[in-house]
Amino acid sequence: MLEKLYLSDLEPGQLYKSREYLVTAEEIKTFAQQFDPQPFHLDEEAAKSTFFQGLSASGWHTGAITMRLLVDSLPIAGGLIGAGLEDFRWLKPVRPNDTLWVESEILSCRVSQSKPHQGLVKLRHKTLNQLGEPIQSFISTIVVPQKPGVQKALSPESCPTP
Amino acid sequence: MLEKLYLSDLEPGQLYKSREYLVTAEEIKTFAQQFDPQPFHLDEEAAKSTFFQGLSASGWHTGAITMRLLVDSLPIAGGLIGAGLEDFRWLKPVRPNDTLWVESEILSCRVSQSKPHQGLVKLRHKTLNQLGEPIQSFISTIVVPQKPGVQKALSPESCPTP
Repeated sequence: MLEKLYLSDLEPGQLYKSREYLVTAEEIKTFAQQFDPQPFHLDEEAAKSTFFQGLSASGWHTGAITMRLLVDSLPIAGGLIGAGLEDFRWLKPVRPNDTLWVESEILSCRVSQSKPHQGLVKLRHKTLNQLGEPIQSFISTIVVPQKPGVQKALSPESCPTP
Repeated sequence: MLEKLYLSDLEPGQLYKSREYLVTAEEIKTFAQQFDPQPFHLDEEAAKSTFFQGLSASGWHTGAITMRLLVDSLPIAGGLIGAGLEDFRWLKPVRPNDTLWVESEILSCRVSQSKPHQGLVKLRHKTLNQLGEPIQSFISTIVVPQKPGVQKALSPESCPTP
């Protein structure tokens, strides 16, 4: 178990790397049957004549796998709770037997003005494959609690926004 | 089967409504076990003392359900293929037995300059619950092919960006 992270533990520029996740053809098809039943996510043969020219994972599947990796690599106290996402891009198709991992960089953090017991932290998450190619990228804003007992020590300026 | 939509069929202001989707506690927990294993998505009792004060669906689950509804309600020729998302917000928790549906509005469409056989269409998707409350909202950019035989009839100006 990693130690839980509070707002005062986070600073712009910090990097968090996840473990690796193997994406199988079986998992690509199972996810697609439930949430994104289109030929390029369901069947190798049918996928050949499509935009993707072969079986590829649903972008929502890649997003969900990214979340699974973030839950382990960003042990925020109170849980990993997203308020929103920006600049979400799918950069390359994810293929069967790709191994994905995620690199998260803290961009900014600030104490909430309306709820000073918590802060809002902005991160950029890049999901990469086994060749180190970025296949997905987005910016998230997450809710991070203040450490019990240190609330008063933090001011909005102590956690600068670049 | 709905007729497939090409670039020339789409205009800013058009609305597409999806069917409804019932979200069960069982499905919330099953998705969370695989992709977002946090107490507020996994267990009613454990969820009570968290930020969400009760079991709620993973935001990635809500996104995946939204995609499932879009596949049926936006029958784009060649499939529903996203290039990216903007301004993604989770507005309210999704609870067990909520019924979700999606309203999509075309914001703009333009012919691709580098690939004139296709266009890029921007839409705002609102996911709502049974009370009509928006629980998630985002803007997508999707790739839409030109109708065979009408490529030359369309210019970048014929599909205006508001």
